[in-house]
Amino acid sequence: MKVIDNKESLQKWRASSADEVGFVPTMGNLHRGHLSLVERSMSDNDTTVVSIFINPTQFGPGEDYGSYPRTLERDLQILDELAANFKDKHLVVFAPRTNEEIYENDFQTKVVVNSHLTKILCAKTRPSHFEGVTTVVSLLFNLVSPKRAYFGKKDYQQLKTIERMVSDLELPIEIVGMEIIREEDGLALSSRNQYLSEGQRAQALELRNTLVELKRNYSSDFDFESFKFRYCGQPGWEYLEIYSASELLPVTASDSKIVALGALKVGKTRLIDNIEI
Amino acid sequence: MKVIDNKESLQKWRASSADEVGFVPTMGNLHRGHLSLVERSMSDNDTTVVSIFINPTQFGPGEDYGSYPRTLERDLQILDELAANFKDKHLVVFAPRTNEEIYENDFQTKVVVNSHLTKILCAKTRPSHFEGVTTVVSLLFNLVSPKRAYFGKKDYQQLKTIERMVSDLELPIEIVGMEIIREEDGLALSSRNQYLSEGQRAQALELRNTLVELKRNYSSDFDFESFKFRYCGQPGWEYLEIYSASELLPVTASDSKIVALGALKVGKTRLIDNIEI
Repeated sequence: MKVIDNKESLQKWRASSADEVGFVPTMGNLHRGHLSLVERSMSDNDTTVVSIFINPTQFGPGEDYGSYPRTLERDLQILDELAANFKDKHLVVFAPRTNEEIYENDFQTKVVVNSHLTKILCAKTRPSHFEGVTTVVSLLFNLVSPKRAYFGKKDYQQLKTIERMVSDLELPIEIVGMEIIREEDGLALSSRNQYLSEGQRAQALELRNTLVELKRNYSSDFDFESFKFRYCGQPGWEYLEIYSASELLPVTASDSKIVALGALKVGKTRLIDNIEI
Repeated sequence: MKVIDNKESLQKWRASSADEVGFVPTMGNLHRGHLSLVERSMSDNDTTVVSIFINPTQFGPGEDYGSYPRTLERDLQILDELAANFKDKHLVVFAPRTNEEIYENDFQTKVVVNSHLTKILCAKTRPSHFEGVTTVVSLLFNLVSPKRAYFGKKDYQQLKTIERMVSDLELPIEIVGMEIIREEDGLALSSRNQYLSEGQRAQALELRNTLVELKRNYSSDFDFESFKFRYCGQPGWEYLEIYSASELLPVTASDSKIVALGALKVGKTRLIDNIEI
């Protein structure tokens, strides 16, 4: 495993590597969700790049940028162990040592998906989140020049937004969306789960359980509003919505796949999850 | 010379070509200014791609999108003749046959340089012009995957905006800015010059002459405001400004190179020009 902490070295390494590259962008604090992406990328590609960068521009004022868990040493150890299972494959970790490695002095450019995709759901409380994501992902794509990039479906709206950006701008990159990895009781893995106290950890299950209940009850004449009224009465629910799975548009009779998405605040911790129906 | 009129064929051709590519994006109606870019690209690179696409998103309401000169057949003939002078070099023309080749149904993404660069000068009367340019240029860069791209200095603000986008987003492309090509009397070549009547053609020289006069008068204690008062009294002047040549920032004592930029409306025709000092 090779660790690179600055942009110039990454560019130099990339220019000298003819391999097709798989890419897993992360904010570190790796859990089994991230590792499933890395494993898949290492299966698919000769070389995999994992980036570890807590991107300040996708956090809003008052969000947890400052307290987001920073566990680089542990992350590197986990990745090194994982890489040992893939003989003849290469793993490169790009962990910029400062924010200025990514955003040079006086950075001025934004890549924005300017549609419902970045106005609904999480965007209602995190209005500039997605442009922070699409901008940094664009920049990382240009640095890493991957053939394939891997994203988890837990951040479903993020996945759809990135797919749209890649398709609109004709980036020659295949976006692979990977299934959500969960705890045994169903809670979706998230770096933010560790913010939860024991009591909150139990409350957090309401998010997953409600989505499962929604799927169980879903039918062509499903009364979504009364379902929400029944299940999302407690404070903490930020949203529960259903949309077409392909484009996150309002559900119509012709949609074969839909997705239900929820966001629940437990204490100060905001959790998201979704289920495909 | 190879002519390609759709995105899929371009992508297929590009994937099969290992050459380093030079790229000249144009809106067609080629004049000697464009041809100087193509010639330079053909000297620098084994393969050159010229795109001919009148990009609707960089025109504002009430601008000349509808009447912009469309002369594809003549453009192809000129390029074919030029290419004949470069033995062992390849020229590919990408002329999308419809706007939908570029902007598929429901296009939602924007690449924006969000700074003074897209708020001063031309942006004051053309507020969404530069995001139209940066978005289409990003998309074309991704399709063509050039090593170098060539832009004329007549559109100086555009050149600086694209340089900034490329640098911020770490696009692995060298941007080459080429000198303005002029008529014998000094008028900068532009596809829009042909809108001018004979009388207007004479009036249009005021733009170039004023910039030359400004350069001649320029000194460390130059009184720019009184210069403007003296020279830009006539109606039609949209702006005359001086900025640092590198970043289009307000001139300071430490700037070694500055640029004066002007926009003059003659009848309905809006002309721009600039001069490095």
